[in-house]
Amino acid sequence: MDVTVAIDCMGGDHGASVTVPAAIEWSRRDPSCRFILVGLEAVLQLELAKAGAASDSRFTIRHATEVVAMDEPPASALRGKKDSSMRVAIDLVKSGEAQACVSAGNTGALMAISRFVLKTLPGIDRPAIATMLPTVKGHTHILDLGANVDCSAEHLLQFAVMGSELVASVEMKPRPSVGLLNIGEEDIKGNETVKQAAELLRASGLNFYGNVEGDDIYKGTTDVVVCDGFVGNVALKTSEGLAQMLRTYLREEFGRNLLTRAAALVAMPVLKAFKRRVDHRRYNGASLLGLRGVVIKSHGSADAYAFRHAIQHAVEEVRTGVLDHITQRMAAQQKVQA
Amino acid sequence: MDVTVAIDCMGGDHGASVTVPAAIEWSRRDPSCRFILVGLEAVLQLELAKAGAASDSRFTIRHATEVVAMDEPPASALRGKKDSSMRVAIDLVKSGEAQACVSAGNTGALMAISRFVLKTLPGIDRPAIATMLPTVKGHTHILDLGANVDCSAEHLLQFAVMGSELVASVEMKPRPSVGLLNIGEEDIKGNETVKQAAELLRASGLNFYGNVEGDDIYKGTTDVVVCDGFVGNVALKTSEGLAQMLRTYLREEFGRNLLTRAAALVAMPVLKAFKRRVDHRRYNGASLLGLRGVVIKSHGSADAYAFRHAIQHAVEEVRTGVLDHITQRMAAQQKVQA
Repeated sequence: MDVTVAIDCMGGDHGASVTVPAAIEWSRRDPSCRFILVGLEAVLQLELAKAGAASDSRFTIRHATEVVAMDEPPASALRGKKDSSMRVAIDLVKSGEAQACVSAGNTGALMAISRFVLKTLPGIDRPAIATMLPTVKGHTHILDLGANVDCSAEHLLQFAVMGSELVASVEMKPRPSVGLLNIGEEDIKGNETVKQAAELLRASGLNFYGNVEGDDIYKGTTDVVVCDGFVGNVALKTSEGLAQMLRTYLREEFGRNLLTRAAALVAMPVLKAFKRRVDHRRYNGASLLGLRGVVIKSHGSADAYAFRHAIQHAVEEVRTGVLDHITQRMAAQQKVQA
Repeated sequence: MDVTVAIDCMGGDHGASVTVPAAIEWSRRDPSCRFILVGLEAVLQLELAKAGAASDSRFTIRHATEVVAMDEPPASALRGKKDSSMRVAIDLVKSGEAQACVSAGNTGALMAISRFVLKTLPGIDRPAIATMLPTVKGHTHILDLGANVDCSAEHLLQFAVMGSELVASVEMKPRPSVGLLNIGEEDIKGNETVKQAAELLRASGLNFYGNVEGDDIYKGTTDVVVCDGFVGNVALKTSEGLAQMLRTYLREEFGRNLLTRAAALVAMPVLKAFKRRVDHRRYNGASLLGLRGVVIKSHGSADAYAFRHAIQHAVEEVRTGVLDHITQRMAAQQKVQA
């Protein structure tokens, strides 16, 4: 199936020097994927030429004069920069010229502009940010990761439907299990919102596993983990911090003296295999789920390898029709409730 | 300074076979520490005899016939088991026979009984659970870890005061820095409670750093990290899950074949040094902070080495007068507000 992806080429820490090579790399693997590269025309032409793709008809350039800064307030990006590469890329999804948009830019701005331009799917009050994380068993999907700091039980139910349909579509798992992030497995645990959400989930027809705790994320207890954006964001960033600390410790211990450095040489192939396995770049690309269009947020510091994975997520979501499935499921859900 | 610690010897996964040896081990390092061992007399006598400490006058046994089960509802432990080792140990703190209590038992029950028997310090509405975590720079203290699922801004301020006085006392750091766990550094981030808490903290006279994010915990950005119990519990358990997954991965990669196992042998001293450094047993012992008495919760699965660290925390909190400092600070705080 032909897919056209709009790339916000100027977003992120590295801009076009990462986004364009990533798109070209993906185009080599996926001949039926087309790209609209959005940003400063001269810069994008140069990047295409550098990679020998200047004459590849699958790439078109859409000139955009502005760039949303990484620390720019979302409201200013939304109101003040109508010709930013981010805004133009999202507009292309709205107009139907592209089916998905990928950006490594400012998350808050991307969410604000996407919501304003694309609106949410029927039955969805708020979009959520979903990402994949590695687990002992494989991987899991967790949402929301920070789009919504105050969630009602109904919002958590909507996140569960979206996460469930995402996994069902993209991973072809018919009834993915859904866990509700809490501070204990028992029903009496947690705050009022979480308790109410558990009741809604039990009645939802989803494959609801019940409450899960923080350690269940990496145990891979469920296919989907649902939580409010405050908790999800803290869980994700805490993980990043811990992983970084352990990396530092491991490097320090192996670098301590000549003997440990020799041991590091011997252990290098194993350490590399370990590193590959936990390489967060393979998990790059969070879905802004619940919008009328596929929008994928890449990590701002992504390199071309990581950004390519974000593109891959966008393409998979389009090809497997995630958004249609969410819409259908929400309609069925509301019929049951009515 | 002489300190008497009451040990709930029957709590935790291993009971007296861990708690008594840990107490004996600590008594060898700290001659002016006395212990009241609470539990089944015959069992405790046997454990003392096994370790050659039967005639050591620093150990007394207080017979208690019941044990709080690890999965027992707190209310049932509180109302139904007046002669549990946990309850009797806490009663000893209340009566002044002991200055601190250490238990590896059921957290919910320990909190409920401690709150009922000891009450909270003046100015403190709710006790919080605080623990130490390793960081790139050293370590940090985080609270609350699950005692309070719904916190007001005032509660978060009280946690900050308690955490700050804990670090000031035990680590002799005059003005420990305090971070408020949030999903962004900017003031506009987070939910209403967190925003209000930030305002209270700015006006509090504490050394308030501002908002911190999840990764700041392990970066060691601040000496104290304050959050509500839901978020803190998820952050802690998520960390445990991630650490466990990375251990599994590392073991799998080093165990893959003969070559990698040979590499593991060569790297063993380094891996052991790494393991020592992240050994969570050294961080065992969470403070139930804000009660009129020192109560330390050990991990249920603690071994004697880990439990000894929990005892050490108890002794340090008594000797450095943490609770007096919290009381004084709260009184000063309330004078400012009045």
